[in-house]
Amino acid sequence: MAVDRLAGVLAPVLTPMRADLAPDVAKWIDFSRQLLADGCTGLAPFGTTSEANSLGLSERMEMLDQLVAAGVPAAKLMPGVGMCAIPDTVKLSAQAAALGCGGVLMLPPFYYKGVSDDGVFRAVAEVIERVGDRRLKVYIYNIPPIAVVGYSLAVIERLVSAYPGTVVGMKDSSGDWAYQEAVLQTFPGFDVFTGSEKFLLANLRLGGVGTISAMANVIPGRIRQLYDNWLAENAGQVQEALNRPREATRDYAAIPALKEIMAARTGDASWRNLRPPLVNMSAEKAGEMLVKFEASL
Amino acid sequence: MAVDRLAGVLAPVLTPMRADLAPDVAKWIDFSRQLLADGCTGLAPFGTTSEANSLGLSERMEMLDQLVAAGVPAAKLMPGVGMCAIPDTVKLSAQAAALGCGGVLMLPPFYYKGVSDDGVFRAVAEVIERVGDRRLKVYIYNIPPIAVVGYSLAVIERLVSAYPGTVVGMKDSSGDWAYQEAVLQTFPGFDVFTGSEKFLLANLRLGGVGTISAMANVIPGRIRQLYDNWLAENAGQVQEALNRPREATRDYAAIPALKEIMAARTGDASWRNLRPPLVNMSAEKAGEMLVKFEASL
Repeated sequence: MAVDRLAGVLAPVLTPMRADLAPDVAKWIDFSRQLLADGCTGLAPFGTTSEANSLGLSERMEMLDQLVAAGVPAAKLMPGVGMCAIPDTVKLSAQAAALGCGGVLMLPPFYYKGVSDDGVFRAVAEVIERVGDRRLKVYIYNIPPIAVVGYSLAVIERLVSAYPGTVVGMKDSSGDWAYQEAVLQTFPGFDVFTGSEKFLLANLRLGGVGTISAMANVIPGRIRQLYDNWLAENAGQVQEALNRPREATRDYAAIPALKEIMAARTGDASWRNLRPPLVNMSAEKAGEMLVKFEASL
Repeated sequence: MAVDRLAGVLAPVLTPMRADLAPDVAKWIDFSRQLLADGCTGLAPFGTTSEANSLGLSERMEMLDQLVAAGVPAAKLMPGVGMCAIPDTVKLSAQAAALGCGGVLMLPPFYYKGVSDDGVFRAVAEVIERVGDRRLKVYIYNIPPIAVVGYSLAVIERLVSAYPGTVVGMKDSSGDWAYQEAVLQTFPGFDVFTGSEKFLLANLRLGGVGTISAMANVIPGRIRQLYDNWLAENAGQVQEALNRPREATRDYAAIPALKEIMAARTGDASWRNLRPPLVNMSAEKAGEMLVKFEASL
């Protein structure tokens, strides 16, 4: 990992919505600042947890401009840019590079299924060639449980060989530790963020650079504590304690649950707003989940 | 089926691309006209086969404007409008309704997986409410093999009850005849297009209204022949003959294969251009496929 590269604890920032389901940009900027103050070393706005794929291209572009204009350091940002259509991914990636973002988080095109490694490689390559900006730092985003289309080791090999200095790392949300371990061992110097903080210690021990985790929206300080102290003797215990909040909420849909936690903490019920196709959990389930979550801390 | 509704044989129009992978709009308009001349009763531009999900929102909007401006009757068009983000689906649907399109073909938001029936219902409902145009005719697009997210019978029931006269039909590309049969039997008057011409006769016999089939790009006249003569004594044999071209090409990726057929027929190699993540088949495979396809006719 180069010293100027993103590392540590990044939150895929939850997107607060107004009653009309428009993003509440002012609240989102405040929340982004708060996450950095509370322990995040960086932010990954427009991640899966951000409901980014429920936001349109122009919405994302306007929000990113405003976030940087508000003074959140672009170097700490890794916005999600991977959309189904290459021209859209190009627009978002070019904007992020021009703003000086520390990187971009790139899903493969995810509509067509059963696509070949060659097709995934060409999709990313086409974006990089079209953006044509040496400032662009691509972190590929592997999340087959949701995107279905993923990045094989063969594709990573081709991308790293073809675009060294541009394809610099990844977020792995496969949930498959064997895969992540293989990536870490096969590509030293490739900056692997684990998509779950439950693998954070294991990730760091194999040369990984940190985590981009949904849970960083609600427990950034705790995750940061492990990141800062992973060489300590008690790191294993810290990891175990860190696993409890995730375990406590594992039976609930992640994004609605995180928004319930934010609503309960802030007393601001509008945090519960979600764009369809996501829906709120019942008040009963939310209450039950909140009790379990608080007890896990 | 109301007399002014779309019915018959619709092609999800292939999108010719230039070498730079921009849509070749002039060629696309010519091809659209040719399909109508060759037997299609209507067109479904921006379907899965059209590589629509590899096209950006602004690309689709410009193309649709140009298609209608070129004189292709809007009443014969059912453009694909379902994107991941509701505001994008709203823009495309509103444009189609304003242009007088016969309908719109609406995928559910397809990034998030494991979403509830309530979430799918709310996503479509939100689009309809936001468009707020009585001219809008929604055909839901069920294609779980690719979109993964689909429309259950319970969602169809809710949509038809909540928006009669707006949610008027569907394209079913589940490949699951039992599902399609259940929809046809449960919702008489709901205009079901089968996504594969292999189910065309069965669809019509149960009150379905036709097919929107990838194969209609290359054998529109043959499909139309069955549609026009499905009550004839020999309709079963006509259906069997119609199944052969699909069978002949079933081992090949559908969109690359169809573009190979177009390139071979027209002598215009640029028909082979595909946007990643789709890729061309090898020349050897293409040659083999073309021989099988021609022999099946």
